[in-house]
Amino acid sequence: MEIRLARKYGFCFGVKRAIEIAENSKNATTIGPLIHNNEEINRLKENFNVVTAHDISELEGVKKAIIRTHGIVKEDLEKLRRTDMEIIDATCPFVTKPQQIVEKMSKEGYQIVIFGDIKHPEVQGVMSYAVNKPIVVISVEELEKVLISPRVAVVSQTTRKMQEFQKIVNFLIARANEVRVFNTICNATFENQDAARELSKESDVMIVIGGKNSSNTKQLLSIASEHCKESYLIENEKELEKEWFEGKKVCGVTAGASTPDWIIEKIISKIREITV
Amino acid sequence: MEIRLARKYGFCFGVKRAIEIAENSKNATTIGPLIHNNEEINRLKENFNVVTAHDISELEGVKKAIIRTHGIVKEDLEKLRRTDMEIIDATCPFVTKPQQIVEKMSKEGYQIVIFGDIKHPEVQGVMSYAVNKPIVVISVEELEKVLISPRVAVVSQTTRKMQEFQKIVNFLIARANEVRVFNTICNATFENQDAARELSKESDVMIVIGGKNSSNTKQLLSIASEHCKESYLIENEKELEKEWFEGKKVCGVTAGASTPDWIIEKIISKIREITV
Repeated sequence: MEIRLARKYGFCFGVKRAIEIAENSKNATTIGPLIHNNEEINRLKENFNVVTAHDISELEGVKKAIIRTHGIVKEDLEKLRRTDMEIIDATCPFVTKPQQIVEKMSKEGYQIVIFGDIKHPEVQGVMSYAVNKPIVVISVEELEKVLISPRVAVVSQTTRKMQEFQKIVNFLIARANEVRVFNTICNATFENQDAARELSKESDVMIVIGGKNSSNTKQLLSIASEHCKESYLIENEKELEKEWFEGKKVCGVTAGASTPDWIIEKIISKIREITV
Repeated sequence: MEIRLARKYGFCFGVKRAIEIAENSKNATTIGPLIHNNEEINRLKENFNVVTAHDISELEGVKKAIIRTHGIVKEDLEKLRRTDMEIIDATCPFVTKPQQIVEKMSKEGYQIVIFGDIKHPEVQGVMSYAVNKPIVVISVEELEKVLISPRVAVVSQTTRKMQEFQKIVNFLIARANEVRVFNTICNATFENQDAARELSKESDVMIVIGGKNSSNTKQLLSIASEHCKESYLIENEKELEKEWFEGKKVCGVTAGASTPDWIIEKIISKIREITV
């Protein structure tokens, strides 16, 4: 049986980068969990003594703090920089970008509109860079309640869908004189989805690796199931069943955005082992 | 019978302004016809000796030249300014705006996209202000053939529909890092249409005044006919027929964008006369 990996899967650029930074920062403390995968968090703790704090109030006595991919609120960053602590910034560059845009545009007098979830840490970080209170909306309906200025600058949370962002922009351009639209959407999630769709069309069985309560992994399973009826979602190699692969020619493998490569490799080895 | 005028009808702000300028510029020559209404052009010639030249090559010996609402190509304007001729600029301020935007944004390094008809004099004027060759498109299909830069500034021909402009913008924001969207659409045409629709619902007979080959007047007739079956398009008072108004309680009146008020007033007087 041939095993084919999806063209794109698992960690995005920003997460890979953050983990490399953590591996190079022994004995550091991350502010919030670095990624939503406990096995990886444990690995970083065991191998590099990189531990997790909930927020900056828990950093007393800490010498090195890692800022995770989502970034943090500007005031918190400034507070930390005033201490003796070494600050290691693992904010995803795709998140730093909207932070910088919001700061610059709000200073130039543009009304800031952020398309995203106001409760999401990434959005809270981005918001904090506006010199005036920004508008944060998740839908056009929310935007309808707001007074729109003649000059608007708009950014998106990195994981939002382009089509939804376009709806927000369409609403704004019909109401403002000038709208500066910054496309801050990162395609990593959608690239994983496209690749899973593609691969599932040529596979007899699909293995989707990731957390069973991870929304992006469940989405991958749902996409794979559309084209390949025998699609399975697993968290580790122990869940594999030999009969899934019987009589199959091609096995497709993909993984959710919080799944590290070493878990994927372990699972692929196991598939090879049981299908020999 | 009651005669009701549409809430908005006839000349837009820019045309009204241009005619006032012409009336105050005796013996001047306009570059191209000031508006698409021969009776008004004749009136300006008879009353104010304001005549029409086809283009700047016909201006030899002219002392005062009027630039019409559409504006002209930047190089032509500069050429005229180097002569002794007095230049009277009747370019609509809603057209001057995209000219200025295109000049400024192209100097700042933005790729210029103009949504409009490349053959339209307004668009040719706006285009000429770009320091590099701008992209001029009338549809997303045309835009698909073009290489989009990371930083784009986009304006619209003033008479285009917002919905179509939004499609162009949607295409751009999915492909560029930054899109500066300037809403340069003028709502005058659409306001006339909305007002005609509104008035036709409460009218027993509708009189639409304007050129029989004017596309915006024909559109008004079509809108009026939807709600008021007895809708008539006329160019002058001689075409009115007494029987149209027999037994009617409300007569709605609207006019196309090139119809001067004096023609409308003449027609209303005639309706009053024949329905006494």
